[in-house]
Amino acid sequence: MNETLKTIFQRKSVRIYQDKPISKDALELLVRAAMAAPSGADTRSWSFIIIQDKKMLESLAQGLKYGKMLKKSGAAIIVCGNPEKSVFEGDQYWMFDCSIAAENILLAAESIGLGAVWVSVYPNNLRIRNTKEILELPKDIEPLCVISLGYPKIEQKPKDKFDSKKMHWDKWKNI
Amino acid sequence: MNETLKTIFQRKSVRIYQDKPISKDALELLVRAAMAAPSGADTRSWSFIIIQDKKMLESLAQGLKYGKMLKKSGAAIIVCGNPEKSVFEGDQYWMFDCSIAAENILLAAESIGLGAVWVSVYPNNLRIRNTKEILELPKDIEPLCVISLGYPKIEQKPKDKFDSKKMHWDKWKNI
Repeated sequence: MNETLKTIFQRKSVRIYQDKPISKDALELLVRAAMAAPSGADTRSWSFIIIQDKKMLESLAQGLKYGKMLKKSGAAIIVCGNPEKSVFEGDQYWMFDCSIAAENILLAAESIGLGAVWVSVYPNNLRIRNTKEILELPKDIEPLCVISLGYPKIEQKPKDKFDSKKMHWDKWKNI
Repeated sequence: MNETLKTIFQRKSVRIYQDKPISKDALELLVRAAMAAPSGADTRSWSFIIIQDKKMLESLAQGLKYGKMLKKSGAAIIVCGNPEKSVFEGDQYWMFDCSIAAENILLAAESIGLGAVWVSVYPNNLRIRNTKEILELPKDIEPLCVISLGYPKIEQKPKDKFDSKKMHWDKWKNI
């Protein structure tokens, strides 16, 4: 198995981190990986906000139901879209584009020894409002998720989620 | 730069293929990579249909505006979700989960020398209907996209899509 596949199968959601900063170079590399993702009609209607400030991370933790780990994160990247600029096939495509870009961040993080987890923001109205307020986002920018990042404190095994019942050859089969 | 990052940066949309079959093992590996993706509250409400039959690929090509390359694909994987089973935070999360899983397929394909491209189905009603009819999908199963696959016929360079204006440090800056 090649290294890319190993990374894909090794990736896990990491929520417990060492108290160790993440370099700016590493964080920029993750955002570069995100922007290498495909997007609908190549619209690239995404933006990425990198947060290293501890107070900001604490504010995000308070504003996000599933984001308590952000209090001890080394950094976070907020993956945002712009529905007005994502005009390919209606106004939903920014969600697909941002989801794909976020997965690139998760995989790139795993590949350089960082732990990461997707913290849900969209489509919960309260968490969208909190995130937009904390980050002072423009009206037209929507936060899809926060990627919490840090060097893992404990060793974690990835889940084996393969389910042959969800794999159909040539046509749909109800098993 | 490690191999995973190289794959992320090397990935490109490949629409022109050699007339060369793709092994079942390779196709199953791609679906395994897809199922290694994270999903909202770990709901895994996805399904994957692998199409190798030439007539089916031709039908899909006819039914999908952006899918003409499927006539000469080695195979295709249709990434489907189940909105009724994806109950985390409303009924939109299956789109995020399926987008992430599709990106794993695109990256895994690149890593094993296959070319791939995301062919849009959702949310276009005509293409959803065509795809569901051709594949005889159950009512509750929604096709998000078709991943067209094949061994690349020509060498393609990836785009450099990095844009520093879309990367914000610590807070939003309008540049």
